[in-house]
Amino acid sequence: MDQNSGQWYTDVCRANSDQQCDDLGQSVRGYDFSDSSVDYSKLLSAFRTTGFQATCFGLAVDEINRMIKTKITPKPEDRLAKTNCTIFLGYTSNMISCGVRETIKFLVQHNMVDGLVTTAGGIEEDFMKCFLPTYVGRFDISGAELRKNQINRIGNLLIPTKNYCQLEDWIMPILDQMLVEQQKEGMLWTPSKLIHRLGKEINNPDSVYYWAWKNDIPVYSPAITDGAIGDMLYFHSYKNPGLVLDIIQDVRSLNLLAVTAVNSGMIILGGGLIKHHICNANLMRNGADFSVFVNTAHEFDGSDSGARPDEAVSWGKIKIDATPVKVCADASIIFPLLVAETFAKSFPRS
Amino acid sequence: MDQNSGQWYTDVCRANSDQQCDDLGQSVRGYDFSDSSVDYSKLLSAFRTTGFQATCFGLAVDEINRMIKTKITPKPEDRLAKTNCTIFLGYTSNMISCGVRETIKFLVQHNMVDGLVTTAGGIEEDFMKCFLPTYVGRFDISGAELRKNQINRIGNLLIPTKNYCQLEDWIMPILDQMLVEQQKEGMLWTPSKLIHRLGKEINNPDSVYYWAWKNDIPVYSPAITDGAIGDMLYFHSYKNPGLVLDIIQDVRSLNLLAVTAVNSGMIILGGGLIKHHICNANLMRNGADFSVFVNTAHEFDGSDSGARPDEAVSWGKIKIDATPVKVCADASIIFPLLVAETFAKSFPRS
Amino acid sequence: MDQNSGQWYTDVCRANSDQQCDDLGQSVRGYDFSDSSVDYSKLLSAFRTTGFQATCFGLAVDEINRMIKTKITPKPEDRLAKTNCTIFLGYTSNMISCGVRETIKFLVQHNMVDGLVTTAGGIEEDFMKCFLPTYVGRFDISGAELRKNQINRIGNLLIPTKNYCQLEDWIMPILDQMLVEQQKEGMLWTPSKLIHRLGKEINNPDSVYYWAWKNDIPVYSPAITDGAIGDMLYFHSYKNPGLVLDIIQDVRSLNLLAVTAVNSGMIILGGGLIKHHICNANLMRNGADFSVFVNTAHEFDGSDSGARPDEAVSWGKIKIDATPVKVCADASIIFPLLVAETFAKSFPRS
Amino acid sequence: MDQNSGQWYTDVCRANSDQQCDDLGQSVRGYDFSDSSVDYSKLLSAFRTTGFQATCFGLAVDEINRMIKTKITPKPEDRLAKTNCTIFLGYTSNMISCGVRETIKFLVQHNMVDGLVTTAGGIEEDFMKCFLPTYVGRFDISGAELRKNQINRIGNLLIPTKNYCQLEDWIMPILDQMLVEQQKEGMLWTPSKLIHRLGKEINNPDSVYYWAWKNDIPVYSPAITDGAIGDMLYFHSYKNPGLVLDIIQDVRSLNLLAVTAVNSGMIILGGGLIKHHICNANLMRNGADFSVFVNTAHEFDGSDSGARPDEAVSWGKIKIDATPVKVCADASIIFPLLVAETFAKSFPRS
Repeated sequence: MDQNSGQWYTDVCRANSDQQCDDLGQSVRGYDFSDSSVDYSKLLSAFRTTGFQATCFGLAVDEINRMIKTKITPKPEDRLAKTNCTIFLGYTSNMISCGVRETIKFLVQHNMVDGLVTTAGGIEEDFMKCFLPTYVGRFDISGAELRKNQINRIGNLLIPTKNYCQLEDWIMPILDQMLVEQQKEGMLWTPSKLIHRLGKEINNPDSVYYWAWKNDIPVYSPAITDGAIGDMLYFHSYKNPGLVLDIIQDVRSLNLLAVTAVNSGMIILGGGLIKHHICNANLMRNGADFSVFVNTAHEFDGSDSGARPDEAVSWGKIKIDATPVKVCADASIIFPLLVAETFAKSFPRS
Repeated sequence: MDQNSGQWYTDVCRANSDQQCDDLGQSVRGYDFSDSSVDYSKLLSAFRTTGFQATCFGLAVDEINRMIKTKITPKPEDRLAKTNCTIFLGYTSNMISCGVRETIKFLVQHNMVDGLVTTAGGIEEDFMKCFLPTYVGRFDISGAELRKNQINRIGNLLIPTKNYCQLEDWIMPILDQMLVEQQKEGMLWTPSKLIHRLGKEINNPDSVYYWAWKNDIPVYSPAITDGAIGDMLYFHSYKNPGLVLDIIQDVRSLNLLAVTAVNSGMIILGGGLIKHHICNANLMRNGADFSVFVNTAHEFDGSDSGARPDEAVSWGKIKIDATPVKVCADASIIFPLLVAETFAKSFPRS
Repeated sequence: MDQNSGQWYTDVCRANSDQQCDDLGQSVRGYDFSDSSVDYSKLLSAFRTTGFQATCFGLAVDEINRMIKTKITPKPEDRLAKTNCTIFLGYTSNMISCGVRETIKFLVQHNMVDGLVTTAGGIEEDFMKCFLPTYVGRFDISGAELRKNQINRIGNLLIPTKNYCQLEDWIMPILDQMLVEQQKEGMLWTPSKLIHRLGKEINNPDSVYYWAWKNDIPVYSPAITDGAIGDMLYFHSYKNPGLVLDIIQDVRSLNLLAVTAVNSGMIILGGGLIKHHICNANLMRNGADFSVFVNTAHEFDGSDSGARPDEAVSWGKIKIDATPVKVCADASIIFPLLVAETFAKSFPRS
Repeated sequence: MDQNSGQWYTDVCRANSDQQCDDLGQSVRGYDFSDSSVDYSKLLSAFRTTGFQATCFGLAVDEINRMIKTKITPKPEDRLAKTNCTIFLGYTSNMISCGVRETIKFLVQHNMVDGLVTTAGGIEEDFMKCFLPTYVGRFDISGAELRKNQINRIGNLLIPTKNYCQLEDWIMPILDQMLVEQQKEGMLWTPSKLIHRLGKEINNPDSVYYWAWKNDIPVYSPAITDGAIGDMLYFHSYKNPGLVLDIIQDVRSLNLLAVTAVNSGMIILGGGLIKHHICNANLMRNGADFSVFVNTAHEFDGSDSGARPDEAVSWGKIKIDATPVKVCADASIIFPLLVAETFAKSFPRS
């Protein structure tokens, strides 16, 4: 390179003129605010050509719309599956603590998804909200002050301890009755059967699990003992001992749901158990056809939470020729917007 | 605690019945999708009670709307400032690489902000896009393959090297002319004066800096040499030596903008230099009145990028009684939505 | 402020001279490399005054050393607990995939911890490594290529599928035998009982769970079905149906371990289920006395994974007057160093 | 797949027996604590086979040792460079706020690096520490309380405002003298010349920039006005106007350092300006030969801070055949350990 030419890029370009691509596809262009009012639908569509996670959002809209299109296609008659595309929705407990619960409820109420996977808090907080509210707080309220006032913090949300009392008062007689059924009818309870029973008992259309029971959508939560429900089962084991909760029948049921699926889609909000459990079930069918992950974790620490979809491809959890999408963002913002652009628009409601 | 009571939470609640708060404010509740079509405005409003970063988004909308309300109030007659609220907008270069550029252009075109701070790429890529597009790509394209084809990657965006050639061809004669003005008229160039000059020369209403020049909104970029423009200044220093770019007059100008402000607001997308530079200027006036940070960094590593607004309070960069908001998210999604809910709605356009 | 004074900070200081603190405690000072060779012990001690996460590392060393000091103190004679400080160690599965497994094995072998909580992969990969190795790879190997070669990726590690075959061949006869014991002896299996049985059968001093069985240290993994062991239980349910795995007895056992503890300490590597499960158990005793969290998650998304220890204080999972520490870092680097500065130095080995 | 075979992995393995790799390289194995005392050198060496970021640490040790080996090889006689490998060290200001400053000082004192790039705080805090200490604090001290006491927070560090007064008292007469030299001798000051002058004046062997001046190692900081020094230049522009600080001569000097390098290495702690500036200079020589990045940012948001080294390859900032390493971690822990395993061991001290 000749510094005295006074140019660098031009020399580089000339030296490589045969290697220039003339068209690399879509140009980057964001939403144009020049109209007098905002066209939200255009704004969200413009994300596709905005770049970075906005583009990932656009790709996720496309991937979910492919799931829906496949799902509403009639299934082959000889297949056991209920639908032509079995959609698994997984979410961590905080999605139920926060207002994403209402979005999830919408999907379950209208049979838009076919199986749910969550952790203990994701079960119990749905029921608790049927009795008393969770509140909007702040991230920086002193833990000691909250403790003294019997208020529990989840990020910037607050749950009074008395909300748990309501849950306890409601659930204990149900556990008693379940034990009777186990002893008299030989019922082998599993977490998914417990959740459906609670969904039936709550009898409240605000509840995700009311609709899951009503629509016979299974809810898997193998570690359901890891939360207040677990503590109540622990106390119940003293007060009225004998209840058994088996997890083998549930993994059999979840894996079968995947294995019998004609096509399968995964929508997973958050990481940890719920992400792995859905992916692992899809491994049993040699990979999901459609996948959208929304979470805030990154791959550097070797966690499954942060793994890119391509890691799941290596395991056979996602098909090699699939077009999975990860959106790196807090789902409290992303998921309502994703549903607005997909299920709420293109899924025929029952 | 008596395990044999078979209850835990109920005992805890009874023992602390006098400490229960009956009302903790807003209940958590997300958007209700039950209407047949999506009401986007309601959906975005529902973020305020959705929790987590959705709530932070809602708080940021409120904070920016407070800035706007203050700004459109007539200023005291005796004050030098152009407006009753001087709004500083800072953004890292990738905000111009991506489609957030169009949102920024909108704000500058309509005099909604009063001072800009960015890094070198945030200047040059705005001009480059007036010649040739940046493209949407993927995060995982091989660097070696791209290199062989003279294509440069920015996250999931692609810029051909030839785009830089266009910049070089355009900028070199301008630098020559600037040197003439320095030598003949004693002009002392600074980064902000260079940027305004380029904004005038580009003469293209797609350009952020065309409007910054047109509306006399200063653009500060003390490290403007850290990018292709810097390389061009480097080559120019051989071809046609002598140009000087002084940064002291620019820090004087930026600090004066803050010191003379009647009220001040900061909107900062990303971290590093651009965040610190705006905050540091506001330290000179004992703190900004309004602040919104949108970035993906966290405080644990002691970086200014990840510092919570409360750290800025300790320095006097934000007023003690202010209500600053940080949204932890990629601004490519957040900023267009924030502007949709604030400037695009409530700021009277010229 | 008078700009013409030509000084700012000096004026500020004078105006506030009565408010200056003269001594704020420890000065920041890093390790001094001027000696001809590195004194590693001094280097790690210097982290305490280095700032940021280095300081958090130093605080974590102190907190663990407090756990150890309490643990090696004789317990009150009338207490059921085995030790004066019951230490809970939780870790996500990737800690066993990576070489942190050897560090965990050391702690379990020498009875330095009293209860383990992990997820399914954290169980099965320990046993698999007794047959065949996991390999060091890279984060960016193509998932499709790996899939074609039956190699599975975990971050930058690789596990051939044949390693899972070895696990399957070994585990199936054990499951058969467990079913016999269930049917003939009325054994009610739980995940922790299964893990101890496998630890006994593996009979290999490299295995974490061999030592857990040998030293009668319980291992809780309520979602043990979420992994290859779960898939094997699923297949076993067809081949030889009837095995039941109950999770209620395990939550009872875990909660009792916490409730009966004289003092309790939590060391938790990673987030999700394993973090919540240990904290939830400590809630049953009104909070742990000592806590060290090592993970890479942040609080902004409302996840329990990213929650600061102060959130756990609000729940009563950590005592109000405790001094919990979070180190924000990948435990693959941090945990071996933490153990080097604590258990390896100050815990008397059996 | 035949569920009734009761096996899955074994069937998969048999079906793919020809595709199994028998050896995938290094087995994963962590440090063995069974010796009675810890061998730290072995422990740090074991990181290479520990996986995740521990493995990245091991790779970074190798990459830096390659830099050193190249550097201590005699350079071709006809080359202008001072050394056979020009090592650029970049770091954000917080690295000087924290105790990593002492590690950097060691490298500069012993001529182990050849050019430094940092931001304004990275300059001024080194000098301030020569007068008064920075203190270890906590992340969660109230900003309002600190403000009232004139204490400024940087993560978990604290700097009293009076430390800035000391800086101001010391620097103002130097600025006066610099203006004299500009006016009388036609000196054209740049940030790097200012920093060397301050390094000479401080005359304190604790200072990084004392040694940078002494050893004639250039320090680039194009945005040096973005901090307290900038504020002092701003006040100086009123009290004693006329000083000019040119950034063009500095980018010319930095780029020349890269262009004339026989081989080049980059060690970059943190992101933003300092990362881009070193990489951009290396673009001028068609890429660095050796690269180690230590930072906590991720690629998803399209920031240069979070970009993987492979993005830099696409730009020609890193050579196609290089073996760059990124360690995702807080450098306050990583960098002292990296230096312990590299420069402190294998670099011959002057």
